[in-house]
Amino acid sequence: MYYLGIDLGGTNIKGAVVSEAGEILKEASRPTHNELGAEHVSDEIALLIHTLAEGFSPDLIGGVGLGCPGTVDPSSGIVRYANNLHWELFDLRSALKARTGFLVQLANDANAAALGEAAAGCAKDAESAVILTLGTGVGGGVVLNGKLLTGYTGAASELGHMVIVDGGEPCTCGRRGCLEAYASATGLIRMTREAMAGHPDSLLHAVTREQGAVDGQTAFLAREQGDPAAAAVIQQYIHYLSLGIANIINCFYPQVVALSGGVANQGERLLQPLRREVASQVYGNQYLEKHTEIICCTLGYRAGIIGAAMLAKQA
Amino acid sequence: MYYLGIDLGGTNIKGAVVSEAGEILKEASRPTHNELGAEHVSDEIALLIHTLAEGFSPDLIGGVGLGCPGTVDPSSGIVRYANNLHWELFDLRSALKARTGFLVQLANDANAAALGEAAAGCAKDAESAVILTLGTGVGGGVVLNGKLLTGYTGAASELGHMVIVDGGEPCTCGRRGCLEAYASATGLIRMTREAMAGHPDSLLHAVTREQGAVDGQTAFLAREQGDPAAAAVIQQYIHYLSLGIANIINCFYPQVVALSGGVANQGERLLQPLRREVASQVYGNQYLEKHTEIICCTLGYRAGIIGAAMLAKQA
Repeated sequence: MYYLGIDLGGTNIKGAVVSEAGEILKEASRPTHNELGAEHVSDEIALLIHTLAEGFSPDLIGGVGLGCPGTVDPSSGIVRYANNLHWELFDLRSALKARTGFLVQLANDANAAALGEAAAGCAKDAESAVILTLGTGVGGGVVLNGKLLTGYTGAASELGHMVIVDGGEPCTCGRRGCLEAYASATGLIRMTREAMAGHPDSLLHAVTREQGAVDGQTAFLAREQGDPAAAAVIQQYIHYLSLGIANIINCFYPQVVALSGGVANQGERLLQPLRREVASQVYGNQYLEKHTEIICCTLGYRAGIIGAAMLAKQA
Repeated sequence: MYYLGIDLGGTNIKGAVVSEAGEILKEASRPTHNELGAEHVSDEIALLIHTLAEGFSPDLIGGVGLGCPGTVDPSSGIVRYANNLHWELFDLRSALKARTGFLVQLANDANAAALGEAAAGCAKDAESAVILTLGTGVGGGVVLNGKLLTGYTGAASELGHMVIVDGGEPCTCGRRGCLEAYASATGLIRMTREAMAGHPDSLLHAVTREQGAVDGQTAFLAREQGDPAAAAVIQQYIHYLSLGIANIINCFYPQVVALSGGVANQGERLLQPLRREVASQVYGNQYLEKHTEIICCTLGYRAGIIGAAMLAKQA
């Protein structure tokens, strides 16, 4: 049997035909044209589903799954709120059922990506995994025994919205001091800018001029050239990220915590100091026989597509 | 079938014969005499098991479960570290197998209590529940679809050891700013003492004289008499507790969060303001159709015994 996996983004809709084992057989994408409204976006998704299904016997298509940004209700198929699509209470499942005949399985996009990594990526053989996406925000997904944890409300595991600094930096969610406000690329950029303001002689300025702007790489690049202000920024960033990951381990004790998103591209430069910081904070770490592995995700943007297909497989 | 549930405490070992539905048919207890060592405590547990099993046909005893303080490994039956018993790497399962013939199922005591509340107490019909015990520390247990979340490491869900105040109050676990350092009765007592030091005219002093010492009730009693310093202490305590509970909801989105332990005896005096504070912090709360219910536990000390029996039932 094959499954169609769709990742609905603000700019593009990406999709694939995926095998039971999570291998991609065929990929395609279409522009979202979100400015034309939810009904139009539904048309685009339906067209993508038709394109993907072409050439496959309908009997062999086991179902369709879709990852969507924002707060979705997996049981009803309603997108409750998707900030960057400007959608509120849109019944995406009905819209797609009418257009394609498929009963599409929905999940939050970070959740779908987590399921993809657990099914066919970095956490393939793990009994449990928590995936953290360090991008503009901090997205999360928890996979326990191969299934997504979506909870009673059906809402995604919002691991980025865990306060780690009471009264700290404002978060987009309205609270202060959330992990997202510190461990996102946005948080790293803020800390980099603060360091630049405090250290006019830092190499951070030269690196920024070369790159054209401050981004999540700036501090890592300047640190490689021996800049102490950059090293302090990275230490600060890793401190906050380690707080969040240790909190997550103390809650879930998963086999794997895996990082994705722009900042995770630093690989071992990020992971090595991070593992040390986290180990010192995990409750009872010295008495435990087994320990959570902290690694990077491996599937890139395909994680969301493969995970969406796995939603259909699990339905 | 009946199951024996044992709750191993520092002072007493309590046990019961429990029905499939979680009803207690017979109770008994013995002193722990922990000072005599782990082998002696194992003798005491074995005697309690014999006392409980007496009068029941061996064919009808389906198994034995035991809740133990500290870090236990449910799969091997080894107590990895129990601070208040002074045990380290004690193979309790083998000790009890040799004495009773039963293959005893082990869990952390807070976890066992959570399973008891989920099986037969305040969260009986909930698909998921998080139980927080607000006592000397903050213990926790997560029950998803009737099963305890113990994770890859087998260690309990240590929800009290989630940093909410970076660099905050020292915690017994070695980190700073853990939920336990603020939301435990110990944390409440510290805040009450701080308020007394800052407000020599507060009624907190008179209440303390009446009670003989500051405890988790002091601030609640003084607030009832209209004391503003006491009201501020309770507001502060609820602020921290709400941070932790909102973090837990954003991670797990359980159907129920239930509180037990001394502070939870305040009931609605605690729950009403707490629910308001938490609701304002849950991610996407206004878009969700279903919401986590925040309530108090109902089984008292029996939660741990019933939950321990349920461990045996689930084995």
